[in-house]
Amino acid sequence: MTGFEIPSEQWAQVVEKSGGPVVYKKIPVQKPGPDEVLVNVKYSGVCHTDLHAMMGDWPLPTKLPLVGGHEGAGVVVAKGELVKDIEIGDYAGIKWLNGSCLACSFCMQADEPLCPHALLSGYTVDGSFQQYAIAKAAHVARIPKECDLEAVAPVLCAGITVYKGLKESGVRPGQWVAIVGAGGGLGSMAIQYAKAMGLHVIGIDGGDEKRQSCKTLGAAAYVDFMTSKDLVAEVKAATPDGLGPHAVLLLAVSEKPFQQATEYVRSRGAVICIGLPAKAFLKAPVFDTVIRMISIKGSYVGNRQDTQEALDFFQRGLIKVPFKTVGLSELQNVYALMKEGKIVGRYVVDTSR
Amino acid sequence: MTGFEIPSEQWAQVVEKSGGPVVYKKIPVQKPGPDEVLVNVKYSGVCHTDLHAMMGDWPLPTKLPLVGGHEGAGVVVAKGELVKDIEIGDYAGIKWLNGSCLACSFCMQADEPLCPHALLSGYTVDGSFQQYAIAKAAHVARIPKECDLEAVAPVLCAGITVYKGLKESGVRPGQWVAIVGAGGGLGSMAIQYAKAMGLHVIGIDGGDEKRQSCKTLGAAAYVDFMTSKDLVAEVKAATPDGLGPHAVLLLAVSEKPFQQATEYVRSRGAVICIGLPAKAFLKAPVFDTVIRMISIKGSYVGNRQDTQEALDFFQRGLIKVPFKTVGLSELQNVYALMKEGKIVGRYVVDTSR
Amino acid sequence: MTGFEIPSEQWAQVVEKSGGPVVYKKIPVQKPGPDEVLVNVKYSGVCHTDLHAMMGDWPLPTKLPLVGGHEGAGVVVAKGELVKDIEIGDYAGIKWLNGSCLACSFCMQADEPLCPHALLSGYTVDGSFQQYAIAKAAHVARIPKECDLEAVAPVLCAGITVYKGLKESGVRPGQWVAIVGAGGGLGSMAIQYAKAMGLHVIGIDGGDEKRQSCKTLGAAAYVDFMTSKDLVAEVKAATPDGLGPHAVLLLAVSEKPFQQATEYVRSRGAVICIGLPAKAFLKAPVFDTVIRMISIKGSYVGNRQDTQEALDFFQRGLIKVPFKTVGLSELQNVYALMKEGKIVGRYVVDTSR
Amino acid sequence: MTGFEIPSEQWAQVVEKSGGPVVYKKIPVQKPGPDEVLVNVKYSGVCHTDLHAMMGDWPLPTKLPLVGGHEGAGVVVAKGELVKDIEIGDYAGIKWLNGSCLACSFCMQADEPLCPHALLSGYTVDGSFQQYAIAKAAHVARIPKECDLEAVAPVLCAGITVYKGLKESGVRPGQWVAIVGAGGGLGSMAIQYAKAMGLHVIGIDGGDEKRQSCKTLGAAAYVDFMTSKDLVAEVKAATPDGLGPHAVLLLAVSEKPFQQATEYVRSRGAVICIGLPAKAFLKAPVFDTVIRMISIKGSYVGNRQDTQEALDFFQRGLIKVPFKTVGLSELQNVYALMKEGKIVGRYVVDTSR
Repeated sequence: MTGFEIPSEQWAQVVEKSGGPVVYKKIPVQKPGPDEVLVNVKYSGVCHTDLHAMMGDWPLPTKLPLVGGHEGAGVVVAKGELVKDIEIGDYAGIKWLNGSCLACSFCMQADEPLCPHALLSGYTVDGSFQQYAIAKAAHVARIPKECDLEAVAPVLCAGITVYKGLKESGVRPGQWVAIVGAGGGLGSMAIQYAKAMGLHVIGIDGGDEKRQSCKTLGAAAYVDFMTSKDLVAEVKAATPDGLGPHAVLLLAVSEKPFQQATEYVRSRGAVICIGLPAKAFLKAPVFDTVIRMISIKGSYVGNRQDTQEALDFFQRGLIKVPFKTVGLSELQNVYALMKEGKIVGRYVVDTSR
Repeated sequence: MTGFEIPSEQWAQVVEKSGGPVVYKKIPVQKPGPDEVLVNVKYSGVCHTDLHAMMGDWPLPTKLPLVGGHEGAGVVVAKGELVKDIEIGDYAGIKWLNGSCLACSFCMQADEPLCPHALLSGYTVDGSFQQYAIAKAAHVARIPKECDLEAVAPVLCAGITVYKGLKESGVRPGQWVAIVGAGGGLGSMAIQYAKAMGLHVIGIDGGDEKRQSCKTLGAAAYVDFMTSKDLVAEVKAATPDGLGPHAVLLLAVSEKPFQQATEYVRSRGAVICIGLPAKAFLKAPVFDTVIRMISIKGSYVGNRQDTQEALDFFQRGLIKVPFKTVGLSELQNVYALMKEGKIVGRYVVDTSR
Repeated sequence: MTGFEIPSEQWAQVVEKSGGPVVYKKIPVQKPGPDEVLVNVKYSGVCHTDLHAMMGDWPLPTKLPLVGGHEGAGVVVAKGELVKDIEIGDYAGIKWLNGSCLACSFCMQADEPLCPHALLSGYTVDGSFQQYAIAKAAHVARIPKECDLEAVAPVLCAGITVYKGLKESGVRPGQWVAIVGAGGGLGSMAIQYAKAMGLHVIGIDGGDEKRQSCKTLGAAAYVDFMTSKDLVAEVKAATPDGLGPHAVLLLAVSEKPFQQATEYVRSRGAVICIGLPAKAFLKAPVFDTVIRMISIKGSYVGNRQDTQEALDFFQRGLIKVPFKTVGLSELQNVYALMKEGKIVGRYVVDTSR
Repeated sequence: MTGFEIPSEQWAQVVEKSGGPVVYKKIPVQKPGPDEVLVNVKYSGVCHTDLHAMMGDWPLPTKLPLVGGHEGAGVVVAKGELVKDIEIGDYAGIKWLNGSCLACSFCMQADEPLCPHALLSGYTVDGSFQQYAIAKAAHVARIPKECDLEAVAPVLCAGITVYKGLKESGVRPGQWVAIVGAGGGLGSMAIQYAKAMGLHVIGIDGGDEKRQSCKTLGAAAYVDFMTSKDLVAEVKAATPDGLGPHAVLLLAVSEKPFQQATEYVRSRGAVICIGLPAKAFLKAPVFDTVIRMISIKGSYVGNRQDTQEALDFFQRGLIKVPFKTVGLSELQNVYALMKEGKIVGRYVVDTSR
């Protein structure tokens, strides 16, 4: 309980107006409410969503001023009087879902991400781009002590999200899943989760570098959308019986795959939408969808149980995330690279500098 | 085994060339193969699909000359040497699925409708618009002796299909389902199945006559798409908590509902596509689909187990189908009415005249 | 927020020592913690469990002194600062599960009844045999305003429990369930829930009075264990195909049915254990269980979602519970009748007298 | 179609009277019926069940004279007129389930092993201890050409059975399963299937040799029932959170584990019974089973889909089965060793000698 001196002020990156930039400055440290914890964030992953939040790109407005960030890994340094299942000194993760009501029909059915009263880290409440962040105790990720806080940070959003998508797909060990965007940050984690779940992976992405990356991570096949003359036929041919994969995970940030995946998924298969290309629409012919009994499903972030399961795979060493660490003070530079599309892998910020 | 004298010739309605018309004429009676039965069809429902088959409307070619029909109710009068689980004299139904391989990966998982070798009654093999029809013994519906063959005929396609859709939706007793096209032939059966399954129904259709029909059959609410100023809001408001129905059954033959249903279905809910409007597309915004974790699923005809379950509900008197019976010889007239959109309820043809 | 004057003292029935009796006396009214509500209990059902708690019959020790009761229906009169989804003046129910941690692996998966930190009303915390009871806000049943508080009380334990068991059985509308103990209090509710869920019921109990009761409530068949010469054969024969019911609900308080149900359940069927006869054991031959792929499952009380669903069936008028109301002051008399096995139906106590 | 000369006589091991021994002699080769294939058996695994069949140990009588064997791997050399989905020259496997009606309610739901008309290889029909065996075409395992027929033989019963049990358990990748009898023939395959499905395994068996074997195959923990002072506590402690495994697979041939597994399985967990110790009973306290919501399920042999999936894992090199091959003529010697309990791993007979 002792040993943690909590300062009254801390360094943070603050969005003061929609459109940014972030301002690196000192702000007060908050006190946790009765059902909250205060987490000393050590590292935080940087996600495209953080940039969207700063830019005000989405219909849902953010709080302002805003501290972004929702992949924060740190240590619990204070907690409210009602908090009994996490201790001072424990490792904890600040995720996209900062809190939910735990009482609505969605929360009661373990669908906390659908809670109409959900608090979103770095969006509707301050997030992890500060040294001390608040979250509902029920919602912070319980990070095992064996984990490296720097390496685990990107799992807290990207990892959980792709793991959730694989669960939602309903595929069983031994079946086939196509991952669209397999060569990107989410994709590389998705391949590893899929392999750890006993699945066979068809990576879909563009270019030989990504082919190499997919193969190294264990994809059984790779289809290059930039050079393929018939992507649909090639994806189907990659499965031993030629009927196509049992599921498709759409991590892409362009619209086309969302309108093409039903063509190569196996009859009775599931197309899982995860990526959020701006203003994109799903589209599929009614006739084929009916006759082949295809499912198209949206999968959002994980619930609390998904979080712990996704972390468990990481802790066992099954998920390696390539990342590069810079100081929290350099966050605006990371956004600049992101805007230019120059980021490969995941950036992590170190809140101590 | 005795008592059934099988003639060598019979009356049938034959499509001799694509586009029709049907020709009422005498043709030979076939002999069943080792795994087949010969059914003396007494009554057959007439479905829109039969008209499409005659007209050659769909990409998949029909056999020619063709005897149409896939809602045939009759009596087994002969069977092959391998057939052991159905007896001469038993009631049997000729359904859309005339046969399947029973050995492919789909058949092995009880998804016979997805079998790539499926035989389709009145489409790729001769169907029920004749007095004696052949079908694979494993696939003919086992119709209980208590059933009226005239009344049960329309259940063999329309009834099974809507029942299957309700099963595929995953809704549980006590939950809400919206039925689009609730006032039509399929819709009226869907309401009755839904009620018998403990569901609450929101009927969606156009006009006061259909409102009356839906209410009489037990719909808890009715939304009129012709007069509603905000259909989405109205459908959601019809559920006690305002979150919308847990599932939507799309029986409509126009495209719009296929692009609108995701707006009013509850988060985590399922939109089930059954109707097949020509050249229609599903369409939904990726963002909402993901964030609300919505499923869109195609549901085709039932498998053999669905068939028996759907018949069981009928046998218990829970499903009443309004129909009008005419002689088989008048089939072309029925098609004429159908083309003019003048049919309310279901037509049944009596093969004895 | 106003209009509720909360007294400092109230009437309660207190177990002062294990073995009882209950003492009717004035005790202080507690104040709710930040995540709790104070419920002005109007009516409370009396359950056999309450007697067991007073007598100290079970291995798990109760708190002492103890206010029993876990079927309390009343009105929220105060709430803690964190409580946002229930208002002063709302109807609320005190159930067996008074609270749970909402954060362990069971709570995270909506299995709150399995929470190792669960608080049990009238057992490990004070329950509903007092005028003002405390419960965790997340756990009190939300009772719709249309409900009669006196009539709904027994649903809060008995109703939820049998509804949960039916859900756990996995049976679908149109299938068959045998209910052992169908003529008792739980049984009569189980029949009604089963009917509302589209199931066919075989009631199993002893005597003609119970036969009459089962038939009136809608059971399709009744088997009398007191007079049947071959109960197993009779139960199987009650299903149309003679293969036995798809599930069995064991509400009995004797051991024998727990060792017999696997004999008449259908292959692939489920035997659901709910009743808790003292020191009883399940027993079944390994060979038959394996060869027929039978499941035996324990089903405990419902979670929060089950609670709301069970109440929804009640609110729609589908569940009628026969009960008799006496003053809270007469609780010891009710226990006396209970010990003598003289209670038919459910007793409810009125806390105002 | 050509190249296979089928002799009129062949070598077989024939049980001429209950109790044995098997007689190695020439018998006629049968001709396949319209829906059957004739398989030139190359290798056949020897299972304890074959000994039971010869000895007449079980209540269900065998045919007599009887050719035993139900793990036969060979080549299709003839087929009936209705057989379209397997070709002369294809590899095929004779399994326990030689045929089923494909039309009863169990077959229609892909539960062919529960078919009341099932034909059992080496029990109710002649099996694989002969050079040419008959089976229903729909039921022979489709063995990929890449497989070694000698090595794959034991998968056809043992492999499929444990794989089915793992599926029935409902455990997901990342969860824990305890395997009782993990050091035996079935157990060693179960560990490998479990690992390939992303599960963590606790092996339970007796002795250090079996510990070594379990660890080598990838079990995360091993509990020795011969030396453990508190097996229940040890099994629970082997899981990271101490709550016990999510499922238990009972492959044991003694009764005790069937009465003990519910004590260490996690709440909400599943105990899967597969082994068939003679005259054994399941037994579990009702109270704990209910309060902890435990499931006990029987799992029999796999259906056709399970068969193909289990073979797929084998084909990918994920399942290695230790076996020793002798000539078919030596079968009686194998039985002698079996009776003495001297067999480690699996025996395979070569039908060519």
